[in-house]
Amino acid sequence: MDYPKSLERLIEELAKLPGVGRKTATKMAFNLIDMRKEEAVEIARAIVDMKNKLGLCKRCHHLSEEALCSICQSDKRDTSLICVVDTPRDLLAIERAREYRGLYHVLHGRISPLEGVRPKDLFIEDLLERLENEKIEEIILANSPTLEGESTAIYLSKLLDGKVDKITRIAHGVPIGGDLEFADEVTLLKAMEGRKVL
Amino acid sequence: MDYPKSLERLIEELAKLPGVGRKTATKMAFNLIDMRKEEAVEIARAIVDMKNKLGLCKRCHHLSEEALCSICQSDKRDTSLICVVDTPRDLLAIERAREYRGLYHVLHGRISPLEGVRPKDLFIEDLLERLENEKIEEIILANSPTLEGESTAIYLSKLLDGKVDKITRIAHGVPIGGDLEFADEVTLLKAMEGRKVL
Repeated sequence: MDYPKSLERLIEELAKLPGVGRKTATKMAFNLIDMRKEEAVEIARAIVDMKNKLGLCKRCHHLSEEALCSICQSDKRDTSLICVVDTPRDLLAIERAREYRGLYHVLHGRISPLEGVRPKDLFIEDLLERLENEKIEEIILANSPTLEGESTAIYLSKLLDGKVDKITRIAHGVPIGGDLEFADEVTLLKAMEGRKVL
Repeated sequence: MDYPKSLERLIEELAKLPGVGRKTATKMAFNLIDMRKEEAVEIARAIVDMKNKLGLCKRCHHLSEEALCSICQSDKRDTSLICVVDTPRDLLAIERAREYRGLYHVLHGRISPLEGVRPKDLFIEDLLERLENEKIEEIILANSPTLEGESTAIYLSKLLDGKVDKITRIAHGVPIGGDLEFADEVTLLKAMEGRKVL
């Protein structure tokens, strides 16, 4: 017994989402069948709209609908600080802690020889450019406390050595082996407060 | 810290899917961000396409892109049998067992006073019409083995009494309290074989 064609195609498309298997995709598809047409179309529209509008901030590479993200545009941030994070989700996790008031630099990944991610695959080169063009006093390395994140932090601390006054790493208040984006606000606060000079 | 507008809207839309909370919706949205634009747009298109094309078979109310579903159109089915199921997913589960060769009737729900689902909210009336217009020898009640499914089966067995030669209920090989659609093929086969006259 085959599914009707349009349903089969929908299940296949949904199963392309990372972490979504055929069973979950089937469940989602049937949920969409049960929704009102306008509701389902709104979901589809939101996907296309996001893909059309959302890009990266040309300075810090955070997600942004404009050339500069809201953080880079703000006049309330301390422009002498750059916090380096692996992903936009990590940036958003730190913002939720409402403690850090500096700028960011999003690498969009971690150095991982196993997965073939090299330094030049990340936004590292223009971090060096920022150090030349902006008055930065401190770089805070907030890479995830995983093997790849630690390697990236060590790589950056060596690369940036001598190019900025202070290089710090967030304290290991964040649980080792975990994903930074799932850390709670208090843990992130502690990690930020307890940062030490490398 | 707010998400960019288009991202926030996407998360809200995805969270409207049943069983998808804000956390899952956020994860899905970020997965969509990481996908190539064409891939993400294909998913959106598949949703709209399904909503535009997929309707219900006018005879048995199974999902169909045409007026009659592929089962009702087939000349290889035993047209003297109707198997009554709660949902299209239940129908598809029975089809996967590849044993039953009759027709179906999909109620699209179960009688549930608690949830306010009354007999007239289901496709019951035109099941009676089918008994008048088609030469049906047996009605197999394959409603889910839940409280609501059992109630629906009992309601139907009383309603149909005298209007068809044989009314049967699938055997309780299917685990009580479970969802029929998740039963494995062998269990469904046993349930179908062991059906008894009501």
